[in-house]
Amino acid sequence: MKAAVYEKQGVVKWTDVPDALVRDRTDAVIRVEATTICGTDLHILRGDVPEVPAGLVLGHEAVGTVVDVGLAVRTLRPGDRVLASCITSCGTCGYCRDGRYGQCRGGGGWLLGHRIDGVQAEYARIPFADTSTFVLPERVDVEDAVLLADIFPTAYEVGVLNGRIRPGDTVVIVGAGPVGLAAVATARLFSPGHIIAVDPVGARRDTAKLMGADITAARPVEVMEMVAAVTDDGADVVIEAVGTPEAFELCTTLVRPGGRVANIGVHGSAAPLHLERLWTKDVTITTGLVDGHTTARLLRMLAAGRLDIAHLVSHRFSLHDMEEAYAVFADAGRTGALKVALTS
Amino acid sequence: MKAAVYEKQGVVKWTDVPDALVRDRTDAVIRVEATTICGTDLHILRGDVPEVPAGLVLGHEAVGTVVDVGLAVRTLRPGDRVLASCITSCGTCGYCRDGRYGQCRGGGGWLLGHRIDGVQAEYARIPFADTSTFVLPERVDVEDAVLLADIFPTAYEVGVLNGRIRPGDTVVIVGAGPVGLAAVATARLFSPGHIIAVDPVGARRDTAKLMGADITAARPVEVMEMVAAVTDDGADVVIEAVGTPEAFELCTTLVRPGGRVANIGVHGSAAPLHLERLWTKDVTITTGLVDGHTTARLLRMLAAGRLDIAHLVSHRFSLHDMEEAYAVFADAGRTGALKVALTS
Repeated sequence: MKAAVYEKQGVVKWTDVPDALVRDRTDAVIRVEATTICGTDLHILRGDVPEVPAGLVLGHEAVGTVVDVGLAVRTLRPGDRVLASCITSCGTCGYCRDGRYGQCRGGGGWLLGHRIDGVQAEYARIPFADTSTFVLPERVDVEDAVLLADIFPTAYEVGVLNGRIRPGDTVVIVGAGPVGLAAVATARLFSPGHIIAVDPVGARRDTAKLMGADITAARPVEVMEMVAAVTDDGADVVIEAVGTPEAFELCTTLVRPGGRVANIGVHGSAAPLHLERLWTKDVTITTGLVDGHTTARLLRMLAAGRLDIAHLVSHRFSLHDMEEAYAVFADAGRTGALKVALTS
Repeated sequence: MKAAVYEKQGVVKWTDVPDALVRDRTDAVIRVEATTICGTDLHILRGDVPEVPAGLVLGHEAVGTVVDVGLAVRTLRPGDRVLASCITSCGTCGYCRDGRYGQCRGGGGWLLGHRIDGVQAEYARIPFADTSTFVLPERVDVEDAVLLADIFPTAYEVGVLNGRIRPGDTVVIVGAGPVGLAAVATARLFSPGHIIAVDPVGARRDTAKLMGADITAARPVEVMEMVAAVTDDGADVVIEAVGTPEAFELCTTLVRPGGRVANIGVHGSAAPLHLERLWTKDVTITTGLVDGHTTARLLRMLAAGRLDIAHLVSHRFSLHDMEEAYAVFADAGRTGALKVALTS
């Protein structure tokens, strides 16, 4: 079969690899119908995720059709169409039984395209398939559904739910890449008073407006003025969807006393936490890895037309055009790429 | 009347000042029966709180008897015995009406011994008296009650309640000064599995044991071993009751995935927040200034013998021995002082 292989730093190749097969009795093998590329894949290519070995198949977001299952798989059979979650969960460890699948201690976690071969391939092996996939509802487009493998539950669980957005809240979303935009769309579900999206890229600000942002800002100083214009004391909820110390600091500057900062961003270094200013401010700061505990519900909402997911896929490719898709996605500043959809 | 006046950096004097009088119609004047000294008062003396002017009467913790009230005071009359909260709250601004009295925008906040003359005095003026004092229940000792002006509600609200301690939790309390010890006592109310108290001072560790700590540690490396001995993944709740970057970093190292860090410490500088490690860990970090929304309940619990408050007062003085009390408290490393009680 063909797959996107991480050859060496900076190089991904769509090339022949051994077929994906059931190895453990909880495995399923899917034929990939749709996949996409994540910013994290680019981090891997740059060598920022050193535990990823050369030769690994990349990708952790896919929709596919089950073609084989191991002996212990109970809820899936060949022919079922499923969403493969970016998080593999054993379903039996203490964290999984507490709904914190992202913290799985039973052999799961972020495996696909990280610890084991991923889903940017014609076929993929999904461990712990009963608890790591979601059967697709009828009438859901695969290109939409694949956005629920990672970015929508990530934005919703780690940004919107951790941030405890309530009706009327002023919400600032720092970063309007795919996850930030999914945060805009899912924040909307709680009827906030204002959503202010911050991104230096004009095309992303435009998309944020299309997806429900009331106000957009290009630079920190602008967003501070905008928050001051609509609130007395700062934002009720600030979501960090960038992953830099500067973006995190901006979030803690924008939040009001008693407000919440929900970090989604993938960080590579420490950020200064200004406790000399924040210790009296009744602030709550959260971090988190997606669990997928909302994925089934988001899929039902998508099927019912209650989730605004349009505008996020900017470029479409065949699976076999993987290398071109990587090139377009990696050059998002020029191509305007948000999510790229690759379908079989 | 006599009062403890901040004369200049390093100097507090028990000296004559003009009598405390009703100035605004929401004021009450109390005759102070008991007061105490807070670590924050020492910060003021060191010049760390530059907004405090020379000549101010210090102190924000008192129990007293009402001797006069302004025309708009509705619930107090001369002869009532009250606890004066460290937080003055207008009771009518948005934050007060939301129960966040510590964030009062209507002229309250931390006023006593900070923005206006405080309560280390024979008499004191208490603004917004209806919403900034609590009538003492019968059978409550004034020396016990004064500990509820600041340290107990601070430890309980900002540490224990923000940390959302649940039965069976492993709780680490970093710092066993008066507020850390009050956190030990109030954490106990939630039946945690283990309370581990950390402090370099042996006498404080001993007192922590008397107040309910199961395990104590002198150094960070010891506490890490102790947490590892009783949990798989780290502490469920870590309370910072020191106020240094190092103590805060230790807290974020000790917390388990999905756990909570509640900061009580008064910080003078930023602390590094290791998002490169924490971003995936589902951690919640809170900060806060005491509101006093639990003070009335804590007073009832104290009256009912349901709050373990013994062991905290280490030294007792007459009000007129204020200067000596400051000397003993400031030299806690040698004198072993925790809270000093000054009574009339």
